[in-house]
Amino acid sequence: MLEGNNVDTLTSYKEHLKEMNLLSSALALLSWDQETYMPSRGIGARSQVTGRFTKKLFELSVAPVLGEYLDALAADGSLTLEERASVRDMAKEYHRQKAIPPALIEEHAIVQSQSQAAWVEARKQSDFSVFQPLLTKMVDYARRFADYYGYEEHPYDALLEGFEPGMTVKQLQMIIDPLRQQLVPFMKRLATEGTPPDTSVVEGFFDVDKQRHMARIALDLIGYDFAAGSLDDVAHPFTTAIAFDDVRVTNRYLENLLTSGLFGALHEGGHALYNQGMPENLYALRLSGGSSNGIHESQSRMIENLLGRDLPFWKHFQPILAGVFPQFQQISPDVLYRAVNLVAPSLIRVEADEVTYNLHIMLRAELEASLIAGEIQVADLPRHWNEAMERYLGITPPDDARGVLQDVHWSIGYFGYFPSYMLGNLYAAQMATKIRQDLPDLDERIAVGDIHALTEWVRTHVHRSGGVYQPDELMTRITGAPLDASHFVRYVEEKFSKIYGLS
Amino acid sequence: MLEGNNVDTLTSYKEHLKEMNLLSSALALLSWDQETYMPSRGIGARSQVTGRFTKKLFELSVAPVLGEYLDALAADGSLTLEERASVRDMAKEYHRQKAIPPALIEEHAIVQSQSQAAWVEARKQSDFSVFQPLLTKMVDYARRFADYYGYEEHPYDALLEGFEPGMTVKQLQMIIDPLRQQLVPFMKRLATEGTPPDTSVVEGFFDVDKQRHMARIALDLIGYDFAAGSLDDVAHPFTTAIAFDDVRVTNRYLENLLTSGLFGALHEGGHALYNQGMPENLYALRLSGGSSNGIHESQSRMIENLLGRDLPFWKHFQPILAGVFPQFQQISPDVLYRAVNLVAPSLIRVEADEVTYNLHIMLRAELEASLIAGEIQVADLPRHWNEAMERYLGITPPDDARGVLQDVHWSIGYFGYFPSYMLGNLYAAQMATKIRQDLPDLDERIAVGDIHALTEWVRTHVHRSGGVYQPDELMTRITGAPLDASHFVRYVEEKFSKIYGLS
Repeated sequence: MLEGNNVDTLTSYKEHLKEMNLLSSALALLSWDQETYMPSRGIGARSQVTGRFTKKLFELSVAPVLGEYLDALAADGSLTLEERASVRDMAKEYHRQKAIPPALIEEHAIVQSQSQAAWVEARKQSDFSVFQPLLTKMVDYARRFADYYGYEEHPYDALLEGFEPGMTVKQLQMIIDPLRQQLVPFMKRLATEGTPPDTSVVEGFFDVDKQRHMARIALDLIGYDFAAGSLDDVAHPFTTAIAFDDVRVTNRYLENLLTSGLFGALHEGGHALYNQGMPENLYALRLSGGSSNGIHESQSRMIENLLGRDLPFWKHFQPILAGVFPQFQQISPDVLYRAVNLVAPSLIRVEADEVTYNLHIMLRAELEASLIAGEIQVADLPRHWNEAMERYLGITPPDDARGVLQDVHWSIGYFGYFPSYMLGNLYAAQMATKIRQDLPDLDERIAVGDIHALTEWVRTHVHRSGGVYQPDELMTRITGAPLDASHFVRYVEEKFSKIYGLS
Repeated sequence: MLEGNNVDTLTSYKEHLKEMNLLSSALALLSWDQETYMPSRGIGARSQVTGRFTKKLFELSVAPVLGEYLDALAADGSLTLEERASVRDMAKEYHRQKAIPPALIEEHAIVQSQSQAAWVEARKQSDFSVFQPLLTKMVDYARRFADYYGYEEHPYDALLEGFEPGMTVKQLQMIIDPLRQQLVPFMKRLATEGTPPDTSVVEGFFDVDKQRHMARIALDLIGYDFAAGSLDDVAHPFTTAIAFDDVRVTNRYLENLLTSGLFGALHEGGHALYNQGMPENLYALRLSGGSSNGIHESQSRMIENLLGRDLPFWKHFQPILAGVFPQFQQISPDVLYRAVNLVAPSLIRVEADEVTYNLHIMLRAELEASLIAGEIQVADLPRHWNEAMERYLGITPPDDARGVLQDVHWSIGYFGYFPSYMLGNLYAAQMATKIRQDLPDLDERIAVGDIHALTEWVRTHVHRSGGVYQPDELMTRITGAPLDASHFVRYVEEKFSKIYGLS
């Protein structure tokens, strides 16, 4: 093939990606708006728009002409590293999407929108039966999708692949089993032998407007760029990259719990830094989703936990917090640090501490795999949920809202997504080991408000390359080894043994 | 042609409209978001999305297959009244759009987005020169569009037709000249012979959060349905029907002027009632824009002025207002009524009183017609603006922000739109004459908070038919005659003679 032809193919390929990006950007806005400002009765018309646009995006992702570009470019040695990564990911998406009949995609998108609305209503009423019919449909779609994608051992593998390239039920179990065997006894040891920190200072009544203001300050502090983003209220926080230079954070605030809104903002801010740290050409090449969902989550956990729940952060943040809420003027950073690090079995995943969080994920991963394999039924989900909560965490949800209805994910068909949250914690701990080697004075710098050293490290090593590298490849480049859960176990054991005064 | 074929054509036509509606809905959201929550740096990517979608909508509006449907359906006697109106409007749009080269449409949409951003920046800096290069481009586009559309006497006629079917410069002049000859002397008589009301009670400092709350109460009061709408902050208020059951109001608040946020909300609420009052099939048939821009404006002016600036409204609203702002507890409805009815030459159109408002419009209509005819240049616009302000209203703007930069319209290429505002006032006054005949006890009902009688009248006579009837046809159906400006003159002379104590 002549070089001129390759250049033409690459140009056509990029124009095809641009068409997809414009649609994706509109879809991201339609979705963000549905969660933030859309009036409730707007859902009917919105489902139609979203359904049609999703279908169009699907058509572009399986267009025969795209298949031709991908075939030609796969054999082209002159592509840049980024272009090759783009072709790798687009080809994978192309083949997965082509496996699904187009009519099913459109149908799925319409039901997805209705299902999400039903979940919102069910959660408000704390009544699973309001959500059950639509969740049944969503599980059925997921099972059909898994069959269409194909898998070797377990249908859930086909769904995991969409969020964490290369991950399987078998590998997940090899991570989960030893982790559970270490975390559950450690959780019990903390409960029986340790002295829990006093959390009373972060409980009480905290004006939501002031919390919103505090969240903005926290986002500013970590370097989130408001000229290329925004902060809005939602029921279930998320971050969305509507486009390059338009990366939006959403958050929610609980009047009686200061930490919910603060750590929610730091968490979403961590995701947003990842997307704000990518150059524009990665957006153009559709590599702006990041290396994987787990790596994306590692960036939010890095900011939320490894920065936000550590003592140096509170040394700097205590006077800032006291500026917004004067009742903290006489509370020391150490008391605040300890107050935000209670380990206790809890009902709500997003409020869970660093030790028990992964147990919430294991529960969900297990239920998802069983649902997809057809081993359990949607109608029995509240019962299975409550039994698993009792088994893993020793507590039973008093109602559906604080149990099976707490997460948005299933309502939008994100089966296979939850494991990313656990993997994010593990990746983040492994990166942190390396960061501490590279930046031995990091704690001292953070304690005086110099967060830049940390954010610059992740920007350089993680954010700037977006989705260029696969997770294992990225971890090996950054830390010298693929995923290794021992960093996380060592991190929580050291941190919480100290806080709880274990010998 | 067999009946079966007609049915097929009608079905295909409606599916084509649905495709257009889905795109229109996305474009409406993209535009609403750009004004409300989009981060400033998001404009680059947003312009690309808006440009591409606008081009696609344009392509659908000039698709040869649509031309075939329209030709076939124009000769079909079995269509309903609504379907015939849809075909009439779509055929008009089809022929106007086909006149414009597709590449020009896309180029225009991209520049429009940049132009709007430049206007926002210029207004912030109060510096016309920041806006001038892009406004020059927008005027140039408008002139080229007028040439492509075609016209008999004046290029501005071609643009007027897009907002007010049938309106021409000549007819506008026949309305404007006698109106000016009556309004200017009356304004002077009020100033020299009358006693102006005391406006001090609505001036001072009014907390913006409380004003937002008050605006919500006012919108509730007029029957605006928040389950199918929302209220958000913007620099320049507007109402947008994103879809059936998703009709959004935006507003702004001035800390030192209570009336701005209140009457802004009532004005936009009037527009929103029009769109919320239309049945879903008019959305499907693309008749949800209303009869004309002037008729749309009549509905906002009906609520803002004929309801909101009348004494009965204040009899009911005074205790509500005092509930939000306790300083009004001892202020009588009559004092408030008078305070919101000062007649005085002012700089800002949207803050203008009922007597001088139309003079602001005449100024803009005159400048627009001259710009489009090439009789004046964009660079000279601030000078022409200031001279005309002096001539019509006897005052000169101290800066661009309070002069030529105050309105968003030119930045988005809405040349020919301003006259609709004046026509709206005239239509509303003419409708009000009929409403008072039909509902002789209206004042007594409004005074006790029964706004329903008024909103039900406009819903039945105006809203429910959406864009089915052309403006003159609608006015004749409702009032027995086409547009007649004498109702408006009689209305303002009676009202303000009384307030100002003219003999």
